[in-house]
Parts: sequence; structure tokens; C-alpha cells
Amino acid sequence: MQVGLYWLALLASCIALAVAAGAAALVLAKPKGSGRMVEIYEAIKQGAKAYMNRQYKTLMAFIILLAVIFAVTVDYFTAGRSGSPYFPYTGLSFLVGALFSALAGYLGMSVAVECNVRTANAAKSGLREALSTSFKGGLVMGLCMVGLALLGVTLFYWLWRNPLLFAGFGFGGSLVALFARIGGGIYTKSADVGADLVGKIEAGIPEDDPRNPAVIADAVGDNVGDVAGMAADVFETYAVTLIGAMLLGWPLYTKSNNVAFLEYPLILGAIAIFSTIIGALTVRAKEGGDPTSAILRGIVVTAVLAIIGFSLATWQLFGHLELFYSALIGVVIVVLLAVLTDYYTSYRHSPTRSIAEAAQAGPAINIIRGLANGLESAFLPTLVIALGVIGAYLLAGGLSDAYMGMYGVAIAAMAMLSIAGIIVSVDAYGPIVDNAGGIAEMAGLDPKVREITDTLDAVGNTTKALTKTFAIGSAGLAALSLLLAYMNEVASYKGMADITKLTSELSLASPKVIFGLLLGGGLVFLFASFCMKGVARGAFGIVNEVRRQFKEIPGIMEGKAKPDYAKCVDIVTRTGLRGMALPGALVVLSPIIVGFAFGPYALAGLLIGCIVAGLALALMMAKGGAAWDNAKKFIETGAFGGKRSPAHAAAVVGDTVGDPCKDTAGPAINPMIKAINMISIIFAGLIVALTLIP
Amino acid sequence: MQVGLYWLALLASCIALAVAAGAAALVLAKPKGSGRMVEIYEAIKQGAKAYMNRQYKTLMAFIILLAVIFAVTVDYFTAGRSGSPYFPYTGLSFLVGALFSALAGYLGMSVAVECNVRTANAAKSGLREALSTSFKGGLVMGLCMVGLALLGVTLFYWLWRNPLLFAGFGFGGSLVALFARIGGGIYTKSADVGADLVGKIEAGIPEDDPRNPAVIADAVGDNVGDVAGMAADVFETYAVTLIGAMLLGWPLYTKSNNVAFLEYPLILGAIAIFSTIIGALTVRAKEGGDPTSAILRGIVVTAVLAIIGFSLATWQLFGHLELFYSALIGVVIVVLLAVLTDYYTSYRHSPTRSIAEAAQAGPAINIIRGLANGLESAFLPTLVIALGVIGAYLLAGGLSDAYMGMYGVAIAAMAMLSIAGIIVSVDAYGPIVDNAGGIAEMAGLDPKVREITDTLDAVGNTTKALTKTFAIGSAGLAALSLLLAYMNEVASYKGMADITKLTSELSLASPKVIFGLLLGGGLVFLFASFCMKGVARGAFGIVNEVRRQFKEIPGIMEGKAKPDYAKCVDIVTRTGLRGMALPGALVVLSPIIVGFAFGPYALAGLLIGCIVAGLALALMMAKGGAAWDNAKKFIETGAFGGKRSPAHAAAVVGDTVGDPCKDTAGPAINPMIKAINMISIIFAGLIVALTLIP
Repeated sequence: MQVGLYWLALLASCIALAVAAGAAALVLAKPKGSGRMVEIYEAIKQGAKAYMNRQYKTLMAFIILLAVIFAVTVDYFTAGRSGSPYFPYTGLSFLVGALFSALAGYLGMSVAVECNVRTANAAKSGLREALSTSFKGGLVMGLCMVGLALLGVTLFYWLWRNPLLFAGFGFGGSLVALFARIGGGIYTKSADVGADLVGKIEAGIPEDDPRNPAVIADAVGDNVGDVAGMAADVFETYAVTLIGAMLLGWPLYTKSNNVAFLEYPLILGAIAIFSTIIGALTVRAKEGGDPTSAILRGIVVTAVLAIIGFSLATWQLFGHLELFYSALIGVVIVVLLAVLTDYYTSYRHSPTRSIAEAAQAGPAINIIRGLANGLESAFLPTLVIALGVIGAYLLAGGLSDAYMGMYGVAIAAMAMLSIAGIIVSVDAYGPIVDNAGGIAEMAGLDPKVREITDTLDAVGNTTKALTKTFAIGSAGLAALSLLLAYMNEVASYKGMADITKLTSELSLASPKVIFGLLLGGGLVFLFASFCMKGVARGAFGIVNEVRRQFKEIPGIMEGKAKPDYAKCVDIVTRTGLRGMALPGALVVLSPIIVGFAFGPYALAGLLIGCIVAGLALALMMAKGGAAWDNAKKFIETGAFGGKRSPAHAAAVVGDTVGDPCKDTAGPAINPMIKAINMISIIFAGLIVALTLIP
Repeated sequence: MQVGLYWLALLASCIALAVAAGAAALVLAKPKGSGRMVEIYEAIKQGAKAYMNRQYKTLMAFIILLAVIFAVTVDYFTAGRSGSPYFPYTGLSFLVGALFSALAGYLGMSVAVECNVRTANAAKSGLREALSTSFKGGLVMGLCMVGLALLGVTLFYWLWRNPLLFAGFGFGGSLVALFARIGGGIYTKSADVGADLVGKIEAGIPEDDPRNPAVIADAVGDNVGDVAGMAADVFETYAVTLIGAMLLGWPLYTKSNNVAFLEYPLILGAIAIFSTIIGALTVRAKEGGDPTSAILRGIVVTAVLAIIGFSLATWQLFGHLELFYSALIGVVIVVLLAVLTDYYTSYRHSPTRSIAEAAQAGPAINIIRGLANGLESAFLPTLVIALGVIGAYLLAGGLSDAYMGMYGVAIAAMAMLSIAGIIVSVDAYGPIVDNAGGIAEMAGLDPKVREITDTLDAVGNTTKALTKTFAIGSAGLAALSLLLAYMNEVASYKGMADITKLTSELSLASPKVIFGLLLGGGLVFLFASFCMKGVARGAFGIVNEVRRQFKEIPGIMEGKAKPDYAKCVDIVTRTGLRGMALPGALVVLSPIIVGFAFGPYALAGLLIGCIVAGLALALMMAKGGAAWDNAKKFIETGAFGGKRSPAHAAAVVGDTVGDPCKDTAGPAINPMIKAINMISIIFAGLIVALTLIP
């Protein structure tokens, strides 16, 4: 019965891509508007493409080098060990994964760029039209990411069967996503922070004002950072979660000879795609209605359909529902995280209001209060995820079979990720309407257009915070299942039938494990510091450049002279690209060095140390940043003196500090903790064979 | 040969206390000055005593309640299990530990208060006299803390022999230190930040200006927060490290019947006390000479003498030097941490200068850059400690005997702590000269007096950063040895002859351990958030109150009307006391809840999760804060526009944000990670017996 069910996944991913293509055609058929709008669109398109091309070109040599290294090390080792003929499995799948991830980012960026201007234009005819255009753009992205990831993994599974052979696909995806998050994140926040600091605060001109020389860099940044980075990130999380679940299904499959353990994650993905397409169809707003409810409806319909489908599929495949309960836990985690995020970041609740209130005593107290809330907001989501791990493990039958327990954790992660399609649609919609508003401002459209995009944008802010917590939570759960997969690989390379044989080496009382744990915690902080530093450097450059242009270009403030936009684009491009080197090297080299020098068990400690510290730090940064942002927005509604009050000025400082936290360092930690786990899985065999400390 | 060598420790601790008393008499014999100086001294003394009394009174009921709980739970359990007659070992030793810790804090505060005014007075006759007075004050404190801790532990050892029976002494010390750090830290930083924000920034009056209504609260805070908090903290670290080492020595003792394993840590403490007294005698500055070299000389002489003594004692006791190498590693860690701290926080080096440079682009970039550097500065110290753990484990012979390895880690921690006496002398000297400067300013003394205290204070800033890293590093290492002791207790209560039998339960692949690890990371963030929130709340209150007084009291700015100092003291007192409740409850309850609900292995995960995240976060906060402070000081030397430039204003915001990081949340994490381990050790038996999940 089970054999061949993965064709369902192949079908679903093709349908996802076809629907995405259809929606893209619908969007592209809409008019771009005219005049200044098109000019700006062209400038953004050109800037975004130029950056993406340079980013990928910069990475290409590195990616090819890594692929060759994998092919001549890991793949030779695998062939030698199994006695099968040599084939560059890891090198090849790594290349394809990197390519797919790059494609995902590129597609995301292109769709967004095309969609921004059309949404601005559609907003001329009202809210309904604007929502429909922007949401379609988001949907294209969501379906593309999920479709590409499912397609890639299913194809490799069809060809090679053994998930360990195509683990490289996941790492390729992770690595490119990592670079996209870092480079794009530094780019977008350098431009954003720099533009705001001089334009809004010093010169007192509005956001997105065309007199600001950094305004084009800022608009480009939104597309290459928030959108392309997020697209590559979701693609890779989906792909590595699938692979992680299959890796943990492998020992169950070899024991039971039941391929369902390998194909079940694929089936979950397929079911969720069908649910997503139906759910997306329900997203329609009436003119004057509340777009929030339309969007939430889409998510709820998708989740409910997916849950029903999961239960049927689980029963069909296994004859019992144990694994379905684990999958259900994954969906429940998403809901709980969403509620917590709303509580900690929306200004309807006290935490964010307290930050706004603190702004009355100046920027320092505003920032201290925001840091305090950020730190606090890391706790409950961590508790939810920790409880989720225990629950998924136990419900899957972990008490009687540790392998089933671990598989349950991976299935919870996969269930969470399976609905990423609809979540991305909603997330991508945010930057699209934001940019549409920017274009409307820059092109000097009727203020009513900006009002409509602002209404949509307010919804976007809520959903953006939701998706960020989704991204971190799913990254944490995915990374944990990768960690378990890594330990399984080590056990298997050690020639142990059972992972429980390894436990004396993986004990918390082992100095190697303690060493790894401590180092892993420190590593995440170091990684985050590189990201923050990149933004500090880039924004500093932009501030100086914008100040210079305001001073040296006569007539610029009167709108008579055109600012030198290209110069600002150039600064952030260089900072973004330069900023990728150190954190990238850190992620690739540290597990390899620790693995070979201190052994596979120290490396296991390092991996979970990264997850523990990374989860807390990423949550703190994402939520703290969002809360600062919304505290400022709360003041802008008239609280504590409203716009232009001292409290507002203080809140702007907090918002600016939060920017690189929530949009650069925080999100970059997600691919980081997965990439570091993936490379460890790939090198596990070699590390076991060649380490200095066994 | 070995029996009775602990008399050496008894002797050393008595000598330490006697020398401290002698030094105290010398300081008290010096004149306090006259007039306004004495008035201010009286006000500070009264405020500090009032706060300390209220703090201890608030805690008393809680401490007694806990002692009773220990006596009727843990002690009954122990008696029932061993079949020996009931005696409230834990309850009693806990009470004594709390009392000693409170005494340490009270003594520290009193010495500082008496010393501040006398140092200000001594500065009238020059640098040499001022250094001698202030350093003597520091020495009194250093010797008292170390003497009290060694005395307490040695007495209990003499009476009861089994370290597990007096583990309560360590927890009592930890708990009071925890509250002192939180309450005192919130007090001092609320007052400091609030006073600076309105006084320095809004009203433009100098620091310590008597027209500022918060100035007395600020001066009181320096004594109850920085000094008393630090004193209680060092006392407890010393005590728990000793107890931790003895707990890990216990299984070695029962195996070999060699009491040296129990007494060796006491001997190390005794040797270091003799070395400290000799080292302190070498601290003398020539008039016009550099006080830094005098102070460093004291530390170096102490360390060298201690190392020589350690090697002789180790050879004498064990006939080989293996454990000496572990001890040596402890001392080497201190040196490396000192070098790293200097690199990351002194403005002679690029990291701090880069923060100052970033201030030119405004407060936001200054803070982003500071956050980035703080995150980065957590990495290398973590690496040093992680390598130290492996080194101490291996050198002690951990490869052939895991118990020797774990004991080696504890010995490294003990060696590190043994020289705490000289480190505290140097640390306490900092706030004393700082306060002396404040008194000179408030009393309107000759500007030359302030110049001398400023010279001494500049040195104090370097040494303060050193000791903070020392405190965090030693706390990390101490907490790790407590964690190992906890796991040993669990193994022993489980009736296992050997800790390695436990390992399948303590494996990183166990969902309980993963649950604990994740939760532990989140817990530290939550704890830090409570501390930061306390400061935000208190500072907010002070800002409003000072603004009100400036507005409502006529003639206050002209110095004609006296501000209402008491009102500000009252605000920070209430905030400080109120701020202790939640974090205190968190530390006491979370290990108990997790232990009983999720079992002793989930709790082990929680403990190390706390250490991993706590170490990184505490390092980040301590160093980030110090770097912001020094970046501001660098600008004040004339860089980037100097005082009153926009860069300076921006740097002041960064400095203010850093204040609660480096002086409240960061230092509070140290006792937190030890207290949470200590209570777990105490409850280990009950948890093993009664947990829901075995």
C-alpha cells in the first residue's frame, strides 16, 4: 500500500508551483500605473536585481568550492564505507539545494518588486483590490517556497531513497538562506536605520521622502532583505525539516521495513499544500471590511483542513493515531506562539504600552524597558516549545521506543512547517503593502492611496510578528530534530545498533559535552554580534553619506536637485556583502573544528548549546524589536504626547535599536542553528573516523 | 598525616578576620573631616543602614520559613534514609549561611560608608594617603568575606564532617546574596540612572551636585548595591565553591578513605589567605606614582605566592601534582579573563573606541554598536572557561577516573576563588574612591581633592571590570562543579555506585534533558528581565520625582532651598525591595517544580541550560555595560567632539542603558545560577524519592 505514495507529494508540489504561476500571471496582468511610479519601480527593480546578482556571484565560488570538498571527502568516505560505487551524492545535492534556495530568494524578490507597484496602483481603486493584489503576491511566494522544497526533496527521495545521501540538499538550502538573511538583513537595516536617522530625525522630512538620498536603498532593502531573505529562510527550514524527519524515520524503516516512516513527512507536506490552496481562496475582504479577519480566516481554514487530512493519512498509513498527536502538537505550538507574540508585541497589551510609557523618561529608559520586555518574552515561547518536545516524544510512543519518540519530535516540526505556505503568503503580504505605500509616497500619489496601504500595513505588522515567531519556533523544533538525527548518525557510524548505547558519551556529566554546551552558547552570541556590527557599520556609512549630500548638493531639500541614490545603494551593498564573510565562516568552520579536534560528543554539546542560547536570543531580539516598533506606533496614535513629543523622539531611538535586532540578527539565528546542525550531520561519518578525541 | 590539617584553615580564617579588624581600626582612627562632609556622611550612613535593615527584615520571614521547610522535609528525609537520629542539619546550616551572608553584606556596607568620607578627607593630604585609606577599606572587606566563608565551612566540617549536611550553609549564602544583588542592584541603578537623566542631561548640573534631589539616594545606592551586593556575592561564591569541591571530594574520600580529598579545598583557601595578606602589604603608591602598578603588584604577588603554596600542599597531601595542575588552570583562567576584559572594555582598545565613534551617528547607532560588542565579548571568555573545564578535568586524571576529573574542575574553581580576597580588596576600593569623590563634590571641597579621587577612580574602573569578569567566570566554574555535585547526589540517591550508570538518563538525546535545557535558557532571560524591569520602574519614578521637585520647590536650582532627599530614597527603597520578590521566587521555585514534576534529569538539563545561557548573558551585560561607560569616558577625554558634543550626548544614553546591564542584571545572574544549583543539591534526595517522572 505504502509504496509510491510519495507521488502524492510530487503531484502536490507541481500543483503548488502551477497555482503560483497562475497567480503570478494574474498579478503581472495588472497595470503598473504610470509616470513617476514606473520610474521608481524601475529603480527598485534594478537595485534589487543588481544586489541579488552580486550576492549570488559572491557566493558562487564558495558554494562550488564546498560542493567539491563534499564530493571529495564526505562522498568518497561514504562510498568507501558502504562499498558501493562512488557517486558525489552530497556534493551534487548540496549544489542543487543551494540553487533551489537561491531560486526561491530570487523568485521572492522578483514577485515582490512586481507586486509592490501594482498594489500601489490597485490601491487607487480601493482596499479590496489592493488586498487582492498584495495577497496574491504573497501567495505566489508561499506556494513557490513550499512547492520547491517539497519537489526537491521528493525528487531526491525518488532517485536515491536514502535521506542521508541528499542531506546536502538541506545544507545547500540552509547556507544560501543564511547568507541571504545576513547580507540582506544588513543591507535592509543599514539603509532603513540610516535613512530614518538623518531624514526623519535630523532633517525632519517624512519617511520615504524622495529628497532623502537613502530612500531607494531603503526600498531595495525591503525586497532583498525582508522578502528574499525570508523566502530563502522558509524554503530551507521546510527542506531541512523534511530531511530531518526522514533521517529519523530511517532507523524505524530499517527495523520495520515500512517505507511509511520515510514517506509520511512527504505526505504531510502534500496534504498541507492542498489545504493551503483552499485556505487561500477564502481570503477576500469586503470594501471597508477588516482585512485582519480575511487573513486569519485563510490561516484557520488551512490549519483545520490540514489537521483533518493529517489524521486520515496517519490512520491510513499506520493504523493508529499516535503520530497524528505529535503532528497536532506542532499545529498547537503555532497557535500558542501566535497568542504569545500578540501579547508581547501588540500595543493593545500592557508590555508594549509599558515601553511607550517609559519613553516619557527619555530614550535610555525606553530602551531599558524594551530590553527587559524582550528578555521576558523569550521565556514562555521557550516553555511552549520545551513542553512540545516532551509531548511529541511521549505521544509518539517514546516511552517504549526512543526512536518513535524522536521521530515524533520531527513530525511535530514537520506539521508546523507544513502550513508554512499560508504563513509566508501572509508574511510576504506585509512588505508588499509597506513598499506599495512607499512608492505611493515617493511618486506623490493621492494621500488616499497611502491611507489604504497604511490600513493594510497595520495588519501586516501583526502578521509579520506572528510569522517571525513561527520562523523561530519552527527553526528551534527543526534544529532539535536535526540534532537528534546527528546523534543517530554518530551512533550508526560508531557501529552501534542503538542510539541509547551512546548515552554515556552524551551525558551531561561528560566534560566534552559541557565544553560543547558552553561554547555553543558563546557561539550564538558571537554570530549575533557580527550581524549587529554589520548594521552599525552600514548605517554609520549611510548617516554620513546622507548628511554629506544634504550639505553639499544645493537645492536638494527644496526638491530641485536629485539626490545621488546610487551612492547609498553602493554603500549598503558593500556592507551587506562584506558582512556575510565572518558569520558564514563561523557557521561552516566551527562545527568542523570542534568535531575533529574535540570529537563528535563535544560537537553534540555545541549543537544543543547553540539551540538553547539561539532560541532564547532570537526570541528576545525578534519580540523586543517588534515591541519597540509598536510602542512607537502607539505613541503615534496620540498616547503620551503623540507625534513630535519628547516621548516620541525617545521611542524612535528604541525603534531604531530594535530594527537590526528584529530584522537582521534575530532572523539570521534561525538558519544559523539549522545550518550548523546540517553540516554536522553531513560530516558525522568523517568526524567519527578521523577525530583527535574519539 | 592528613587528619586535622583543616585546623590550618581555621587558623587562616581567624587570622584573616583579625587582620581585617586591625585594618578597620586603622581606618576608623583616621579623621572624618568636618562640617558638611560629616553631614553628608551621616545622611549616607543613615540611608544605607535603613535600607539594609529593611532589606534584611523583609527577607527574615522568608528565610525562617525556608529553614523550617528544610528542617521538616530534607532533614527528616535524610534522617529517615540514613537511620541516624533526626537533626535539622540543612535547616540550621541554611540559617547560619544566610546570617553570615547578611553579616558579610552589612560589614561591607559599613566599612565602605566609614571609608568613603575618610578617603575624601585623606585626599586633602595627597594621593598616597587616599590610596592607603581606600585600599585598607577594600582589604577589610576582602579579608572579611573570605575569612567568614572559610570559617563557616571549616567549622561545619569540623562539627559534621559530611559536606552534604551543611550544603544549606552555601544555599543560605547564595540566597541572601541573590537578594542583595537584586534589591541593591535595582536600588543603586534606579537612583543613579534617575539622578543622571534629569540632573546631568535635562538640568545640566554636574554629577553629585547637592541640588539634585536624588544625589543622596545615589550615594546610598553605591554602598548598598555595588559594595554590599558584591560582598555578599563573593562570600557566597567562595562558600558554595568550597562546599561543591568537598561534595565532589566525598565519593573519592569514601573510596580511598583519604580525608585529603575533603580537606584539600580548605587548605587551598588557607594558603591563599596567607598569600593575600602578604600581597596586600606590597600595595603602596609613591606620591605622583601610578596607583595601577601598585594594585597590580598586590594581585601578582598574591597569585604567585598562592601558586607556590598550592604546589607544595598538593605534593604534601597527594604525593603527585595532578590536582595542582587543575588548580593552576583556575589561576590561569583569571589571568586570561582579565586580559580579555581589558581588551573589550578599556578605551585603549578598538572595541570601546568603535562604540565612541558610532556615537557620532546618534544614540541608536551607539547602542547598536555597544550591543554588538557586548554580544561579541561573551564569546572568548566562554571559550576560555570551556577549555578550562576540559583541561582541569583531564589534568586531574579524569580519563581514568571520572570522579577525579570532576574533582579537578571543582579544584580549578576553588583555586580561582581562593584569591578572591585580594580581588575584592581591589574591587571595593573602586566604589570607595568613587564615593569619596562624590562626597568631595557635594561638600564643596577643594577641586584638587576631586582630582585625586578621580585619578584613583580611573584605576578603579579598570579593576572593577576585571573583578566583574572574575565574578562571572568564577560563578560559571563554581556552578558547573555544583551541577556535577548535583548529578552525583542523584546517582547516590538512586542507589548507584557510580555516576556513569546514570548516563543514559542524562543523555542529550533524552527529551527530558532537552526540555530542561531549553527551559533553563529561557529562565535566565526571564530572571534578567525582572532585574532590568525593576531598574526601569525605579528610574522612571526618580525621573518623575526629580522633575517634580525641580518644578515645585522654589529656589532649588539656586541652591537656596534644600531638595527632599528622603523622598527619592524612599522611592528606590520600595522599588528595590519590591523587585526582589519575583526573581527570588523564580530561583527557589523553578528547580523544585521542574524536579518534582519532570524528574531529576530534566532538572539537570535545566541547571546546565541556566549556566550556558547565564554565562553568555552575564558576560554580555557586564562587558557591554562597561564598554558603553568607557566609550563615554573616551569622548570626555576630547575625542569625537568631547564633552557637550552630540556624540557625548549619544554616549550618555548608551552609558545609561548599560548601567542596569552591568550593575544589576549581569551581576545578579552570578548568584542566580549558583543558588538554583544549590537548592537542587539540597532537594536531590527528595526529588529522586517523590518525583512524578522518575
